[in-house]
Amino acid sequence: MVSGVSKAEGVLLRHVHVAGPLTRAELAERMGVNRSTVLALTARLAQAGLISEHVPLATHRVGRPSLMVAPAADRVHALAFDVAVDRLTAARVALGGQVLARRTAPRPRAGADLEVVVEALATMGTDLHRTAPAGSVCAGVGASYCGMIRRADGMVRYGPDLGWVDQAFGAALGARLGLGLPVAVGNEAHLGALAEHVRGAGAGLRNLIYLHGDVGVGGGIIVGGELLDGDGGYGCELGHMLVNPYGGRRCSCGSRGCLEAEVGERALLDAAGRPASATGRDAVRAVIADAAAGDRRAAAAVRSIGDWLGIGVVNLINLFNPAMLIFGGTMSDVYRAAADRVRFRIASNVLPVSRERVQLCTPLLGDDTTVAGAAELAFADLLADPLGQGALAPTA
Amino acid sequence: MVSGVSKAEGVLLRHVHVAGPLTRAELAERMGVNRSTVLALTARLAQAGLISEHVPLATHRVGRPSLMVAPAADRVHALAFDVAVDRLTAARVALGGQVLARRTAPRPRAGADLEVVVEALATMGTDLHRTAPAGSVCAGVGASYCGMIRRADGMVRYGPDLGWVDQAFGAALGARLGLGLPVAVGNEAHLGALAEHVRGAGAGLRNLIYLHGDVGVGGGIIVGGELLDGDGGYGCELGHMLVNPYGGRRCSCGSRGCLEAEVGERALLDAAGRPASATGRDAVRAVIADAAAGDRRAAAAVRSIGDWLGIGVVNLINLFNPAMLIFGGTMSDVYRAAADRVRFRIASNVLPVSRERVQLCTPLLGDDTTVAGAAELAFADLLADPLGQGALAPTA
Repeated sequence: MVSGVSKAEGVLLRHVHVAGPLTRAELAERMGVNRSTVLALTARLAQAGLISEHVPLATHRVGRPSLMVAPAADRVHALAFDVAVDRLTAARVALGGQVLARRTAPRPRAGADLEVVVEALATMGTDLHRTAPAGSVCAGVGASYCGMIRRADGMVRYGPDLGWVDQAFGAALGARLGLGLPVAVGNEAHLGALAEHVRGAGAGLRNLIYLHGDVGVGGGIIVGGELLDGDGGYGCELGHMLVNPYGGRRCSCGSRGCLEAEVGERALLDAAGRPASATGRDAVRAVIADAAAGDRRAAAAVRSIGDWLGIGVVNLINLFNPAMLIFGGTMSDVYRAAADRVRFRIASNVLPVSRERVQLCTPLLGDDTTVAGAAELAFADLLADPLGQGALAPTA
Repeated sequence: MVSGVSKAEGVLLRHVHVAGPLTRAELAERMGVNRSTVLALTARLAQAGLISEHVPLATHRVGRPSLMVAPAADRVHALAFDVAVDRLTAARVALGGQVLARRTAPRPRAGADLEVVVEALATMGTDLHRTAPAGSVCAGVGASYCGMIRRADGMVRYGPDLGWVDQAFGAALGARLGLGLPVAVGNEAHLGALAEHVRGAGAGLRNLIYLHGDVGVGGGIIVGGELLDGDGGYGCELGHMLVNPYGGRRCSCGSRGCLEAEVGERALLDAAGRPASATGRDAVRAVIADAAAGDRRAAAAVRSIGDWLGIGVVNLINLFNPAMLIFGGTMSDVYRAAADRVRFRIASNVLPVSRERVQLCTPLLGDDTTVAGAAELAFADLLADPLGQGALAPTA
């Protein structure tokens, strides 16, 4: 079947996209096929300009060395965008995952129209596209957005930070860029989970949870190697678990006692007695630094927020039995400062069999996680069927 | 490839196992293959005695009728066992899912040894096996157990009702039955979810949650068509979400404020002022009946437990965005009595996009869900590779 062959090419391309250059022999072993199959696949991928092959620089074996197969990182890239709470980012990311160039801008204020945000992103994206080397091609466009996204068309169903409801973000950005490419949009925490799963702390694990904090608290949950999306793509909303249903703090969603309300930025700043004017990640880090320096009120705030974070983590481990939990954004700061509270809750409240092996950590990709996830989304069609789109047309 | 052919036979056999008799034309359409492929597959399955073919009794079409393909329900069966809180069950279940014969016994008291429970189950199972029609064959053995199970070997890691820790239940039952078949063991709520997903209220849905109540509260969660099992098979422990972490009731797991502690049998009976001697499903139903008859304390107890159930349901919908939640065991009684509280919590606390389409219901298979799930587990190997075991040997 034709689709079977295309898929095998996608499997090969994904191997070098994720792992970097591999010998034909290594590819044959990882794919469970023989070397003549690898030879046929690499020939087609090389002809399409998606991989290159070269003799390894040094080899310790006797005999003819197996050729190295590398992704065509200098020719094929994606555009990746990130609409985060505090800034806008656009990046050109090579096949293989390296960030080649990057632009950032302050995020427009809450209440900003779709057009304003799209214009700012497209200006950066067009600049990155124009300055790409001659002959290079853009394989796809992906965007991360801090809200609930309808995967099929990139509609922002609910974006509390900008105050958006049902805004056609993906379609508008695609039209404004004018590259003839659709824009695949994902929630920032979903994409963080994807990036850490593909090439970060959780590479190779089939079950992991990524918690992302900024103003709100979101999550991406990988179940059996796939992102949990649920019936409509709106799963993973771990920030809206009710952990303090009677008497909890008011949440941005209108509810009370959600995990986000108890562990988000505002909860920590309020507990530490900071004024309403103190916001953002620097303000969070200031409380944590003060706690470390002996400020009792700040220390009590960190302990209290750490305990609520531990309660949320307990629920997630009992429900998902994950191999790893990854704390990103402000949650990485809170987790590092309050790891003892989180671990105490796990020891006290997680069923013994599920706490046997779970690892806790922060993102290997650091604050690049969401952009890296948007790039993975952008490359998804190419990796599913590398030859299906025909030869990729060069940029200029 | 040989495995590809075996799989196609498994796909066909699963279709008639789940849907009942289908015409060759219907099978071709459902499988997306042509009729000559169906012809070849049915020929091999019929020769192995796994299906039968017959002319349909009546047809409204002109021309030669398409032959009906039916699972060999009179020849092929599985043994299914259920260790529930209040009783032991053994059943002979036909390929196709019909319960052919059933034995039940009271469950031994808490503290009963593995040997005592296995002996009681095996006595019933051996009796069912001996009384099976001559020439019929047992395709597999499955068991449901109310505890945490290691899937690989059927080890009961944690079974609070009987007080078991790390008991080799599957191996012991298999040895005592002496049929030369392994015993596949699953958690009762996982198997309930599986049964409702395959042939119950959630047939055809890819994302659903089954909540099961007895003394404890367990769950089975289907994500993308597969049971969530997590890193070690210990996921889905929704009864141990911490919903009332400060000041909640003591839970059987040693924690406080777990969903199980707030909505389980004991919570309802205590809230209604029933004595400690009142236990079991009849006692739960008596409180609900009294509430319906105007007893204020019973009504307040039902409302309060219904609210906590609603809080747990909110968390599950926000995390999983399921198409359906199914309330089984005592949770079906509580849900029916307090559906308004559950729906109020959903309306108040679930993010709008996730509550758009979720359905709430009770099991279509009623109290047979867990036995049906154990039978599905028993048939799993046969359905994966129907000809892989060679011809099934007759019983006697």
